[in-house]
Amino acid sequence: MQSFAYYMPTRVISGRNCVPEHGDQLKALGTHALIVTGKSSALNGALDDMISALERNGQNATVFDRITPNPTVASVREGIALLKSAGADFVVAIGGGSPMDAAKAIATLAVQERTDEEIFAGGYAAEALPMAHVPTTAGTGSEVTPYAILTNDAKETKTSITSPAMFPRLAFLDGKYMEHLPVRSTVNTALDAFSHAVEGMLSRNATPLSDALAKESLRIFYPLLQKTAGPLTLDERDTLLYASMLAGMTIAQSGTTAVHGMGYALTYFYGIDHGRANGLLLGGALRLCERKSVPALKEILSACSDTLDGICETMDTLLGAREDIPREHLLVFAHAAMANKNIRKSAYEPTEEEVRAIYLSAFPAP
Amino acid sequence: MQSFAYYMPTRVISGRNCVPEHGDQLKALGTHALIVTGKSSALNGALDDMISALERNGQNATVFDRITPNPTVASVREGIALLKSAGADFVVAIGGGSPMDAAKAIATLAVQERTDEEIFAGGYAAEALPMAHVPTTAGTGSEVTPYAILTNDAKETKTSITSPAMFPRLAFLDGKYMEHLPVRSTVNTALDAFSHAVEGMLSRNATPLSDALAKESLRIFYPLLQKTAGPLTLDERDTLLYASMLAGMTIAQSGTTAVHGMGYALTYFYGIDHGRANGLLLGGALRLCERKSVPALKEILSACSDTLDGICETMDTLLGAREDIPREHLLVFAHAAMANKNIRKSAYEPTEEEVRAIYLSAFPAP
Repeated sequence: MQSFAYYMPTRVISGRNCVPEHGDQLKALGTHALIVTGKSSALNGALDDMISALERNGQNATVFDRITPNPTVASVREGIALLKSAGADFVVAIGGGSPMDAAKAIATLAVQERTDEEIFAGGYAAEALPMAHVPTTAGTGSEVTPYAILTNDAKETKTSITSPAMFPRLAFLDGKYMEHLPVRSTVNTALDAFSHAVEGMLSRNATPLSDALAKESLRIFYPLLQKTAGPLTLDERDTLLYASMLAGMTIAQSGTTAVHGMGYALTYFYGIDHGRANGLLLGGALRLCERKSVPALKEILSACSDTLDGICETMDTLLGAREDIPREHLLVFAHAAMANKNIRKSAYEPTEEEVRAIYLSAFPAP
Repeated sequence: MQSFAYYMPTRVISGRNCVPEHGDQLKALGTHALIVTGKSSALNGALDDMISALERNGQNATVFDRITPNPTVASVREGIALLKSAGADFVVAIGGGSPMDAAKAIATLAVQERTDEEIFAGGYAAEALPMAHVPTTAGTGSEVTPYAILTNDAKETKTSITSPAMFPRLAFLDGKYMEHLPVRSTVNTALDAFSHAVEGMLSRNATPLSDALAKESLRIFYPLLQKTAGPLTLDERDTLLYASMLAGMTIAQSGTTAVHGMGYALTYFYGIDHGRANGLLLGGALRLCERKSVPALKEILSACSDTLDGICETMDTLLGAREDIPREHLLVFAHAAMANKNIRKSAYEPTEEEVRAIYLSAFPAP
């Protein structure tokens, strides 16, 4: 049997009103929370629920709501400054991947100083302030991973920083925060979750346990994927959130692959939402796996109970009209993507020519 | 979707020679290990591997090898006394469930004093010395649970103590330590692992995630179950160990049920191995589930790809001739079992009459 490691120390609390009902578990994290969020979280009730829970615990809270999609180092530094001036000793993240990843970076850099030049140099010690995360999309799965993806302007891409301490202590999952999530966000984050489960199985670092989690995620998630463009019941929102969490547990073991690595350029240069970027490229990557007879593809199709054509069609419908990106830019992105370590982590080992082909098929010439 | 919590913080390191190759991970646990084990662990190489790894790390070790099956409070106290006199600051467990559970009790009671009367009174704080566990059977799954089952002489049974800190920090899984495990131990611990996966699905506290882990365990484990009475390859040993770990992750969420609760009397009064005791009772419990149309039964059969008759037959063959236990004793056990909280945790809600019937069918009158 292949060797593997498994680590996912986050305590997951899932269920309707779990923040009000189990908010006492926050007490152990500290005396004063920096709540890292974006402005939309004030709309879905999560921020209110969290502030109330902290108040009931006798804990203080300072809100930092200036996180925008694809968090920057500058905003992370703002958050750290606010944390220190407020005297906060733990961090709460509320929102999608951006607040959650920014929170991880804040919680880490607050106790491990790095200059801007050093931030993406790796080698982080396993030290960070304690965190509690409340995802409000379904989702990035960031509430159960040790990765923070930040905008890397020097390299004109997005780059991950990581340490084992970046796993949140607590994750609260409640589908009600997604009840009024706009269709576009619902679809984009669903594509992100789908890509995590699929890429987890296509990673060189896939393990028996990460595969088992990925397959369970796909089994539950895929039937709902096509429904994400329409009205969803609260129960369906809960299920999508749970499955996206399983997909997060998957990549916490396996990491992501070329699709994620390739997607960052689309986000950085064209502002395409992260989940959508993955969705745009996933079909092409799967077709490449078919041509190369990658064994995991069969397991993926089986877990989805669908054919490759069926999966690509589902995604095409969700993606709709493609952005207008000139071929020359796609070729530049393909070249730059080859420097991303995620390329080498892919079981389908794409060459630059194959990476180019994936980009081009994602944006067919008009 | 049903509410649930999930927590399993142990870092699992699995693979051939993982103790020698990844023993550096022990450094973070402390300076001086109390190694808790039974005498057989010196035979399978695990103790040597561990001592060598600790030496390479510059860590000290004191061996406490006086743990016998079904650990007693007295032996736990001996272990604590040795830990304190040696100045040990973390605990390593090597062996089957008994050393692992004794280690958890030692690691906990060393920092949370309890009189003998209080030990089983519950309410443990989440504090314990750090631990690393090396299972040498496949297995109790104790390396990934927060439970320590000790002999409870006052109640003439075995009782669990627990806290979230009883999860080991590290678990090292290497099938080579089981290479020469005698057939009887192999079969008994396999029955234990099987009962964990099955009971986890039959627990009132089953969750979607514990069920997913249980089903994956059964899917992999069941085909090997019948082979445990014969020669096994190292790869099969690895697989059994992995699946028993998954079953441990399952019960860490769900707890066990009436089968475990009923089994303790067979162990306490007749010295029947814990895993065998569960195996003796499991068939009767599953038949009760069939009569009561318990929904989880269908999922269990599906995960095993077998019928109920098939499963019972497999277990009967492994169990062989039954112990000679007088009917009157079984009736006493049935009555006593009703006081065990595991009875009420079972989705199949057995009455005393049904518990009696399970005991009697396990030991048919000659």
